[in-house]
Formats: sequence, C-alpha cells, structure tokens
Amino acid sequence: MQPLYIESDANARVKRWKKLAGDARSIRRERATLLEGIHLLQTALEHPEAKLSAVMLAAESATAEARALAEEAARAFGAPLYILAERLYAAISPVEHGAGCMAEMAIPTAAPIEGWAREDALYLDGIQDAGNAGTLIRTAAASGVKVVAASVGTAALWAPKVLRAGMGAHFSVRIAEGVSPQALAEGYRGLIAAADARGGEDLFAAADYARGPVCWIMGAEGPGVSETALAASQKRFYIPIEPGVESLNVGAAAAVCLFDARRRRLARSASDS
Amino acid sequence: MQPLYIESDANARVKRWKKLAGDARSIRRERATLLEGIHLLQTALEHPEAKLSAVMLAAESATAEARALAEEAARAFGAPLYILAERLYAAISPVEHGAGCMAEMAIPTAAPIEGWAREDALYLDGIQDAGNAGTLIRTAAASGVKVVAASVGTAALWAPKVLRAGMGAHFSVRIAEGVSPQALAEGYRGLIAAADARGGEDLFAAADYARGPVCWIMGAEGPGVSETALAASQKRFYIPIEPGVESLNVGAAAAVCLFDARRRRLARSASDS
Repeated sequence: MQPLYIESDANARVKRWKKLAGDARSIRRERATLLEGIHLLQTALEHPEAKLSAVMLAAESATAEARALAEEAARAFGAPLYILAERLYAAISPVEHGAGCMAEMAIPTAAPIEGWAREDALYLDGIQDAGNAGTLIRTAAASGVKVVAASVGTAALWAPKVLRAGMGAHFSVRIAEGVSPQALAEGYRGLIAAADARGGEDLFAAADYARGPVCWIMGAEGPGVSETALAASQKRFYIPIEPGVESLNVGAAAAVCLFDARRRRLARSASDS
Repeated sequence: MQPLYIESDANARVKRWKKLAGDARSIRRERATLLEGIHLLQTALEHPEAKLSAVMLAAESATAEARALAEEAARAFGAPLYILAERLYAAISPVEHGAGCMAEMAIPTAAPIEGWAREDALYLDGIQDAGNAGTLIRTAAASGVKVVAASVGTAALWAPKVLRAGMGAHFSVRIAEGVSPQALAEGYRGLIAAADARGGEDLFAAADYARGPVCWIMGAEGPGVSETALAASQKRFYIPIEPGVESLNVGAAAAVCLFDARRRRLARSASDS
C-alpha cells in the first residue's frame, strides 16, 4: 500500500487530528483518539481488537523504527498510512521530540457496569490531571485490576496525554467513563472502598476486606474523595502515614491501596494451597 | 521594613534568581534555591532552621494572601522583601499562574552518611525527572523515612521543580546528594534493599526484612536500578505485579516498597504491645 502525503493545513484529516490532539470534547464526540509513539503503537499491535483507522508518520523526523512500525500497523489493521509534512505532524503531536509515528484509534465502547459488577475495579472520582489519570490506569493494570471507571468530572481517559502516561495499560483494562457514584453504588456487587486521608479504618490493620471483589475509589489531589462518592462507598480506609507530614499524592496512595488488596489475595491463595 | 522595588532586567539579584530558576548547576554552585508559592513558604515558616535570604513578590499578580505571607516570612527570617516588576517575576517563576510569592533559600548542608547510617532511608539511583524526584521525597516523608539520598546522576533535589513536586516534604527529611552506591554500601549500617522488576525475592512473601534500618534503592524509569547500585545492595525485591502488563512507574513502586516496610513495622509494634 502506497502512503499518502499530506502537506496542506487545510486538509480535513489534519484538522480532525488537531482537534483530537487538543480537546477532550472532540475526543468524546468523535469517539476517537490519537496514539503517539513507538510504545503505544507496539502495544496496539499486540491487541488486534484495537481499531486503528489511520497511521501517521512525520515526513522528516520519523525514525527508521517508527517507519517500519507504522507500515506494519497500517498493514495489520488495514488502515491508510499518511506521511505528514513536518510542521503538520508537530502541530498534532503531543510530544516535542517523539519518534514521529502516531495513529488514530476508535475509542472502545464504555464497559457497562453489569459487565464488571463482580470484578475488581478502580474508580476515579474527579481526577482531572491527565498524567495522574494515566499513571493510575497503569498502576491498576499492574495490580491485576481489570476495570477502571471514572466520574464525569474526571479527565477524558482516552485523551492522548492520558494514553501516554498509561504506557499501554489502557489495553490491559476495560474503561468505563461517565459512571456516577450513585450508578456505582447501585450496580456494583462487591465492596466499594474509599481511600480517605480524613478517616475510616487503618488500611493495614483492617480485617481482610478483599475476600470478594473490591472497587477502590480514589479522589482528586486536594479535595479528596467527594461527598457523593463517600456516600456510595461501604468502607473508608486511611493509609497510616507518618503524623505531621503532607499526605501522599493520589498515584502513591492508589499504589498502596491497590497493592494492599493484591497482597491480601496473594497471601490467602498461598496459605490455601 | 520597607519593601524594595526592582524594575530592571539588569539588576544583579534578578540575574541570580533567573539562574537559580533554570539551571541545576547554578543551584549546586550557589548552594541556594527558590521556593515558590504559598504552600512552600508556609512550610518554610514552620521550619525556623530554613534559611531564607530574600522574599519576592510579583508587583501586580501577588494575591493578598501571598503579600501577607511574604511580609511574615521576611520578618521571621530577617530577610529583605523585594517587589518585582511583573515581567521580571514571570521570568523567574517556575509556574504560570502562581500566587506571586517566592523566596530564596540557602540549601542545607548535605547530611553525611555517618549521621544516618542507622536510619531508614530512600536512595535515588539516577532518577532524572524532577516531578518523579519530588514525589519520591513526598512519599518517603509520608512513610516515615527521614533521609533521602541520591546518586550523582539524579536530578538536583533542591531544584525549584523538585521542591514543588515535593510539596514541602523536603523540610521533613534530611537530604544527602552525591552519594555513590559504593559510599552507601560502605557507610550504611542497615539493610540495603533494591527494588528490581527483573528479579529477587517477592516483596510480599519475603520474611520480615524491616526489623532494623532499611535503605530502599529505587532506579530510574526504564533502566531500573543500575549495576553499581545492585552491587551495593544486600537484597533485591520485586513487586509481584500482574503478569504480562507494563511495570509500575517509579513513584508507584516506591510507594509500595516504602509502605510495605512501614506495614511490617506497624504490625510488629502492634503485636509487641
């Protein structure tokens, strides 16, 4: 398949990609996003269910590795390959010195709560920072949690910046955006646990809470878990940090909570066997 | 004390602050750094041992809270208060929409290893990202670790960006920069433990390693703990993450390791009492 060259700012695809690069509303409306860089493209290739609809290369700065990978991805997904004039690529790319490859991908349909009501989950309550959101998805995947749900007030989880920070973890979990705390409380069939620096049970001293499915709620830096999300949760846990110091950031707090649940599971399966 | 107005780019102090804002070598050479924003200034005020040598306000954008705090800090530390023309302040400030207050602070003398050889510590091995370094200091402080040491290849831990990400945690720990892995191995009198995704003991299943002082070594994203630092460590631990997914980022991995040690301590002191 011959690549197609794009050199004009007026090109309709370029306009579309600019919107997807910059604007969470466009991503949500178009149900499409941009994957940037070698690592994300490779991860997409390992997940044939990913729907890549176009693959893009920077005319000058694309590395040999990026070119080979882009051609492979275009072939594997039956997607057209575009070569963009350097300035057009730069206007779309979220990174300054990237490898020079990108793809447009259709965002998978949000996983309905009925499908994951009995699975471990992470619920993001108003987490607006893209980097934090991506790191949280990565930590969830590493801890074995397969579902990441999010309130309306959370960053668009498929935005390019969140994808970058997630380092491919988006492909290891199912993502359910726009889930209200009330819908979570009504639909979820396991323990809903809020991480709350202001009180609750000591996470480490608590009796085993992770015998069934657990959905951890993490709130935003600063305000913490919202009142609505607290009302939806059945238990509150605090991490016993050193007194008199600043609380953990949300990424560190989530790592401690999600791996506390994992540790308890692993210990139980080791003692059962 | 009357504030002093600075309106010229040619002012020697402004030139100095520009260097401190932008350049890790200047920070190291001058043994001075910049604290930016309400939170860091407040934290400094709670630590009289902090040595503020100047306090700066943005002429137009400083909030009323920033003005009051800057005056208090100037008084408490006997430091001159400067009011900077808006464009001068903006050229120095590491943030775009800050509160408009800043201070110059002398960097405390690096804590010599003899002073913390029997204390819990975190050792940063080549961590170059300022945000990661700051978050790691914050996580260390929250976990009760009182010493953060770093290799020569790690970011300048007193750089303004690291201070911001640390959210004041710099004042809750002692910082020892430029410590080689060899110096650590020779001087430290507790367990040196490396977090290494490539192998070692299962962190959760391991026998209690935290009966005495522990120094955790964390490596950079990507390369992980260096060969020299591995050689300096007595034990290697891996976090038992879900197979087939991307490893944790360094901030999440450190949170899991440091709080694993804390959990073991807390459990022991609870069962002893």
